[in-house]
Amino acid sequence: MSEPPRLVQVRQRVLKENDVAARALRTRFHEAGTYVVSLVSSPGAGKTAWLERVLTALHGRYHVAALVGDLATDNDAVRLARSRVPVKQITTGTVCHLEAAMVATALEGWPSKSLDYLFIENVGNLVCPSSFDLGEDLRLVLLSVTEGEDKPLKYPTIFNTADVALVTKIDLAEAVEFDAEAMRRAIESVRPGMEVFEVSAKTGAGMEPWLRFLEARRLAACPTSSVPPFAARI
Amino acid sequence: MSEPPRLVQVRQRVLKENDVAARALRTRFHEAGTYVVSLVSSPGAGKTAWLERVLTALHGRYHVAALVGDLATDNDAVRLARSRVPVKQITTGTVCHLEAAMVATALEGWPSKSLDYLFIENVGNLVCPSSFDLGEDLRLVLLSVTEGEDKPLKYPTIFNTADVALVTKIDLAEAVEFDAEAMRRAIESVRPGMEVFEVSAKTGAGMEPWLRFLEARRLAACPTSSVPPFAARI
Repeated sequence: MSEPPRLVQVRQRVLKENDVAARALRTRFHEAGTYVVSLVSSPGAGKTAWLERVLTALHGRYHVAALVGDLATDNDAVRLARSRVPVKQITTGTVCHLEAAMVATALEGWPSKSLDYLFIENVGNLVCPSSFDLGEDLRLVLLSVTEGEDKPLKYPTIFNTADVALVTKIDLAEAVEFDAEAMRRAIESVRPGMEVFEVSAKTGAGMEPWLRFLEARRLAACPTSSVPPFAARI
Repeated sequence: MSEPPRLVQVRQRVLKENDVAARALRTRFHEAGTYVVSLVSSPGAGKTAWLERVLTALHGRYHVAALVGDLATDNDAVRLARSRVPVKQITTGTVCHLEAAMVATALEGWPSKSLDYLFIENVGNLVCPSSFDLGEDLRLVLLSVTEGEDKPLKYPTIFNTADVALVTKIDLAEAVEFDAEAMRRAIESVRPGMEVFEVSAKTGAGMEPWLRFLEARRLAACPTSSVPPFAARI
């Protein structure tokens, strides 16, 4: 079932406008030396819990901030604020994804020039966010061990537009009889060569390799960065 | 952040077309004496696993069939076919929800006149399906204990357009320190008086009260039904 032609046309125009806005954001982030990471997943895959851990680990060593999108409530911003980094909530109403313009608006008045890392947590949705560039350097797709190993096959577009997969709630792997090999095969068949990390926000499992990877990516993207690598300061 | 006015206009037209198609479906289902139940949830909340259990329980007693929507793959149809009821997969490509016209197309050539129950599993998404009437009698929103107790607050629209909430994977409640009271409070604040069932596809917990409820609802909607109530035949 294809969409009505007029809706397709309008959607393409909206996407084009978003691409222009995203390009402006990307230039601005690069000039400021800010490495930008976005997180997408289905609702409840553990974006906020993992992000809180990551922000807490980076806080004090780096200038870090986060934007977090939801249809309603500022629950996630309140949770993330416990990490003591600046956090802003974007509420989208009925819109099922963040757009570059929402990010630009949220950044108004923020001291984003001095940021080393900016994290952007998207609305929980495995479909809509895939079409919207937010100017990020790295897009993570999270999927929890409780969601089923075939999710990448069912939602291929989001895996194709993401750079890295994080398998979350690995502490529950045994309870749900999680088949790590099947999940990796599913990811590999949709996005060959995709980097995969298995993590747990509850136990902290997987945090160290993840932070090393993140730091290496940031250094590669922002080679003039004056902050020494995370691994050397841990 | 509001949507561009033209996109809003076009979306309203699409929704209106969908409402017309849904009304036609509803009339057709009522005339045939078919009680239609749709399932929405985020990806991985357990729609398919629960539906397989329900289909298996109803099979043999009733004429039952299922339609199942996904962006890609017919994995769910293959799984549901194990229940031995007729199942058809609807693949939506990049569309994040089912529409009434997709349901009508999928039903072509099916012996839907003789069905007592038709189940429609939507694409995994807590946002988009809320606006699209599928001609169903009963819309279930499923959310798993692993997703976090505040999901209803963050995705109020889908809870407002659903009739009943199913809290799934209740067998994992202890492992994830699920707070049932907090979840019920969140549901109640978004949709006062909403009926809530706690279930597990793994253990079968909650199946009996759920089937009794379903049967009562069907009898109320299709009073001329010639099939005796489920409870009397179990």
